[in-house]
Amino acid sequence: MARIVYVSGGARSGKSGYAQKRAEEHAGALLYVATAEVRDAEMAERVDRHRLARDARWRSLEEPLDLAGKIPPAAGGCEAILVDCLTLWLSNLLERTGDGLEITDEANRLIAALRQLDAAVYIVSNEVGSGIVPENRLARCFRDLAGLLNQQFAAAADEAWMVVSGLPLRLK
Amino acid sequence: MARIVYVSGGARSGKSGYAQKRAEEHAGALLYVATAEVRDAEMAERVDRHRLARDARWRSLEEPLDLAGKIPPAAGGCEAILVDCLTLWLSNLLERTGDGLEITDEANRLIAALRQLDAAVYIVSNEVGSGIVPENRLARCFRDLAGLLNQQFAAAADEAWMVVSGLPLRLK
Amino acid sequence: MARIVYVSGGARSGKSGYAQKRAEEHAGALLYVATAEVRDAEMAERVDRHRLARDARWRSLEEPLDLAGKIPPAAGGCEAILVDCLTLWLSNLLERTGDGLEITDEANRLIAALRQLDAAVYIVSNEVGSGIVPENRLARCFRDLAGLLNQQFAAAADEAWMVVSGLPLRLK
Repeated sequence: MARIVYVSGGARSGKSGYAQKRAEEHAGALLYVATAEVRDAEMAERVDRHRLARDARWRSLEEPLDLAGKIPPAAGGCEAILVDCLTLWLSNLLERTGDGLEITDEANRLIAALRQLDAAVYIVSNEVGSGIVPENRLARCFRDLAGLLNQQFAAAADEAWMVVSGLPLRLK
Repeated sequence: MARIVYVSGGARSGKSGYAQKRAEEHAGALLYVATAEVRDAEMAERVDRHRLARDARWRSLEEPLDLAGKIPPAAGGCEAILVDCLTLWLSNLLERTGDGLEITDEANRLIAALRQLDAAVYIVSNEVGSGIVPENRLARCFRDLAGLLNQQFAAAADEAWMVVSGLPLRLK
Repeated sequence: MARIVYVSGGARSGKSGYAQKRAEEHAGALLYVATAEVRDAEMAERVDRHRLARDARWRSLEEPLDLAGKIPPAAGGCEAILVDCLTLWLSNLLERTGDGLEITDEANRLIAALRQLDAAVYIVSNEVGSGIVPENRLARCFRDLAGLLNQQFAAAADEAWMVVSGLPLRLK
């Protein structure tokens, strides 16, 4: 059964870098699961920069929605898998479904799928709830759902970290 | 003299849930002090959801402003009291007074009143200062006052926690 | 060689107060380096309030941009130096240069200059990346650069702290 490591943090906190470093401590092939959809130059540049920062053992899977369905059985033979990130996955799901009713079920389905992998699983998420209350109703709704999703994954994880200024702080 | 436990965190960080769980470890009756004023459907739904998540030992007091005056002497015989939350209380106070001049005094009055209770006191607050600087002057002012209020209560507390992704991190 | 202590936190988290308290534990003269430019009444009031909260051993240097160049050799004989804060410095730099291309180089130049001081160095920075994604492109860019700058200084520091509700949490 997979060991699940949850890594949260703010924007540019170094959370992805920390998760990547942890994954690269494993020998063998590594699977990077990107939930980002490249839609503009800003995003394309970000994706490219991240790709260049990873070593050659990484294979890459881009899937915005159906993570539970598309992550290959036995992680395609990889020893570690990095899902980056939950918050964009949530954003993609909401865009399709229009509301948050099924998010918890989707998250449980993903957790169950990850658990069955014979690999170490690193899951990156964003802290989005520590600023001032957004004026925009949709933004309030999004940060509520993101917070609940983070709780759900952190509860399921075997290990949990928050990264601040590039430095990991253990939560669990 | 009351033991005061301060619990902070971002939106949907699980801070209220953690404070509630801690309070429910006490035997006997429990007092929930809600500072929220129910004004719209969004808020009503939130209040109902929280109410349903609490066990039957909870009594409930809704008071947006005069917490020091309305919390009953000896906590009405309750063994633990949960104040949820300071940030909404601040918002209510500012709406009435229009500025932050007396907030510190009000907070000291509340801390003194809570200290005299023969009950464990759990105080929930929000982290609102870790996003980008708000463009709106009022929002900047609010987050400054919320931050100062948090410092004041955390300094007065016997125990302090920050909750991240549902997981408590001890501050003090 | 200087011992560098990095202190981060949200708005009104007590980060400056903590850094100041740490600096004041040193005997002898202390140097306060303010990166804020006083441009309006709101800022003037903030600067005055901070100045009044410091003891008489503090000398003060106001420099918005060229910190590496203006901090005197051997810290002007001071035993501790407090730089408050990196985030405003970044904001000042961006205003002049219009983009973030040279920020990393500027930061490395500052770190090298601080390292050579025969004084304890306390560096204050802001956590700005834990709220909802800003709608404004410039704000997104700023919080990215601020996050990267924080990582750079925290990595270079001998000691690192995050302050929450006035309470310091050790990161490193």
